[in-house]
Amino acid sequence: MPRSTVVRPEEIRRHNLSQVLQQIHRRGELTRAELTTSLGLNRSTIGDLVGDLVRQGVVDEHVPGGGEKAGRPSHVVAPRPDGPYVLAVEVEVERIVSAAVGLGGRVHVRHETVVAEPGPAAVVTQIARDARRLAARMPASATLVGVGVSVPGTIQRADGLVVHAPNLRWRNVPFGARLRTRLGADLDVRIGNNANLGALAEHQRGAARAMRDVVYIVGSVGVGGGVIVDGAEMYGAGGYAGEIGHIMLNPDGPECHCGSNGCVETYLGEHALLREAGVADDAFGPAAVAGVLADAERGVPPAADAVATVATSLGRTLAILINVFNPEAIVVGDTLAEILRIERPRVEREVERRAMAAARGCTALLTPDLGRDSSLIGASELAFQALFAT
Amino acid sequence: MPRSTVVRPEEIRRHNLSQVLQQIHRRGELTRAELTTSLGLNRSTIGDLVGDLVRQGVVDEHVPGGGEKAGRPSHVVAPRPDGPYVLAVEVEVERIVSAAVGLGGRVHVRHETVVAEPGPAAVVTQIARDARRLAARMPASATLVGVGVSVPGTIQRADGLVVHAPNLRWRNVPFGARLRTRLGADLDVRIGNNANLGALAEHQRGAARAMRDVVYIVGSVGVGGGVIVDGAEMYGAGGYAGEIGHIMLNPDGPECHCGSNGCVETYLGEHALLREAGVADDAFGPAAVAGVLADAERGVPPAADAVATVATSLGRTLAILINVFNPEAIVVGDTLAEILRIERPRVEREVERRAMAAARGCTALLTPDLGRDSSLIGASELAFQALFAT
Repeated sequence: MPRSTVVRPEEIRRHNLSQVLQQIHRRGELTRAELTTSLGLNRSTIGDLVGDLVRQGVVDEHVPGGGEKAGRPSHVVAPRPDGPYVLAVEVEVERIVSAAVGLGGRVHVRHETVVAEPGPAAVVTQIARDARRLAARMPASATLVGVGVSVPGTIQRADGLVVHAPNLRWRNVPFGARLRTRLGADLDVRIGNNANLGALAEHQRGAARAMRDVVYIVGSVGVGGGVIVDGAEMYGAGGYAGEIGHIMLNPDGPECHCGSNGCVETYLGEHALLREAGVADDAFGPAAVAGVLADAERGVPPAADAVATVATSLGRTLAILINVFNPEAIVVGDTLAEILRIERPRVEREVERRAMAAARGCTALLTPDLGRDSSLIGASELAFQALFAT
Repeated sequence: MPRSTVVRPEEIRRHNLSQVLQQIHRRGELTRAELTTSLGLNRSTIGDLVGDLVRQGVVDEHVPGGGEKAGRPSHVVAPRPDGPYVLAVEVEVERIVSAAVGLGGRVHVRHETVVAEPGPAAVVTQIARDARRLAARMPASATLVGVGVSVPGTIQRADGLVVHAPNLRWRNVPFGARLRTRLGADLDVRIGNNANLGALAEHQRGAARAMRDVVYIVGSVGVGGGVIVDGAEMYGAGGYAGEIGHIMLNPDGPECHCGSNGCVETYLGEHALLREAGVADDAFGPAAVAGVLADAERGVPPAADAVATVATSLGRTLAILINVFNPEAIVVGDTLAEILRIERPRVEREVERRAMAAARGCTALLTPDLGRDSSLIGASELAFQALFAT
């Protein structure tokens, strides 16, 4: 049976209020006139809705200065810095970043803790501590309205169970439930995969703004992905969709930690790059990767050849993604963005050869706008989604 | 800028009318009580909306017989056989099938013409002839409300341009525009890819009813696909998404007509099966395929080995689809359904080995419910979508 989408009149006001809020969140400051135009509602309805949000302490209104122009200038509506905010957290292998993020995606305060492969209990404790610390630095009237956390692993969407986070060495951790218990049951807590959240952020506020079909691929040690289909995040039945790092590129390829072999990650991950460049296993790490990229840029072998080999595999992966998704853009992040920068013609040649002609003409190859903050901003967007749901 | 989804009160009635119509279309006969429950509207509103549709000649109402039960039985609402209908057409390499399809997906009349690699002009003429012929066999009051056509090729969604249909040998044919001109400009004419339409039909009326995330893969000479993401067809930026047949399975694999090599189609298509089974090229055809499948079923080499080889490649392909889409089901059609039937354990072993653990538990491997009519029924669904759009 299809899901019913009937709308009852009493839902309209709530729905429209949420639409106004979302417009302000997406676009920052807006005039009433701009709201009227984008939402297709009349001026008095917009005035009423904005009035509601002003009374609730969510937005401020001001009349732009000058006043020399003919006619009355339209009021400017802007998020209040002491209005509602969310706690966004990015859990990484070597650090935990927490931030208080307001409407409009503004990072009010942030806090970074260096950790090493933290266990779930330590992370829950750290996030609770960060929540208090950030709240203390926010204005008294500011209200925490939700929590979003980015984890580098496979997440069960319904309850935030971390099925497997290989680099954190977590397996079947009921992380969402534990965090909910610690932070208070009435707070909406959502857990997301770091690459899915990076895709969300780049779509909402980054390189793929205003696009409806986007693939995001991010690669450092691991390779992850997130996909936007017709303007919405693709999650799949359990929330596990978008495992781009585990598309098989070659049935006879290297073994992968997932139990298969020849996965994209075994060709595009940093370990593959370092191995190709002849770096010894005990020297693996960020410094070695930076060294290989710098050498490759100057054309020094074997680094240059290693980057070229990875670039060819990147082109093959992008061709598969183009044939499957026909996206407007693929956003390529992290170390893979460096590979694309250094060897773009090689990547494009491989795409040209392997992607279907009709689809490949549609797709721009981009790098992220939000840099290292994509997943953190994505976590804040995830938290705000709860606020906007009507 | 996000697309506005504000709802104005005056749109509600039209929207609700369309919802009632869609319920009847999806589910066939329904009582008013069932409509009330599924749409969450009150009884008098449902009564009004149904009254409208009765007056428009779209549905009939009757009181179920018997009358022995306590209380008044709820009226049954059913599509009228002389109500609105669409023209659904499936263009294949050896035949053109046309049908007049009513609400509820009922095929009133159908017509089949045997052709051989028809050119666009011949197909347009044939469809116009079929439209007249079918109309003559329909009741006088029945109105043609839309046309949907399935073509085995890459279709530009916006205007129905056939970019490339390799087996028909069509390239850049403005098929939608030509058909619109021939049939009359006020008729909504939509062209779709045969595999995309098969996916639509199996999702609406077939094996994947009521599922929200589904992949459909269909293979005979060519291999195509269609994907349902969160309840809606995935089209991509230009309408070319879902080219599952051209996912690269092996960078060193056989040459493909698309210009790449090692595509899924070169491992799963019937030519690959026949070649593996040692059939001479000049004996290729449906009879040879049937022979190989029959031999394989009785365990006769080399047919059995050929089917086993294709089954392994099918498992690899399904594993990629599971990692990318995390679907509730993959529907496997046509010759590939036979491969799955004969070698299911082998296919499942390969999926087990190569798909991520979290996602593979979600996915059922199914075969189509609608058999050879999937694309034709999908074409009718495509035509009805125009009617339901509010």
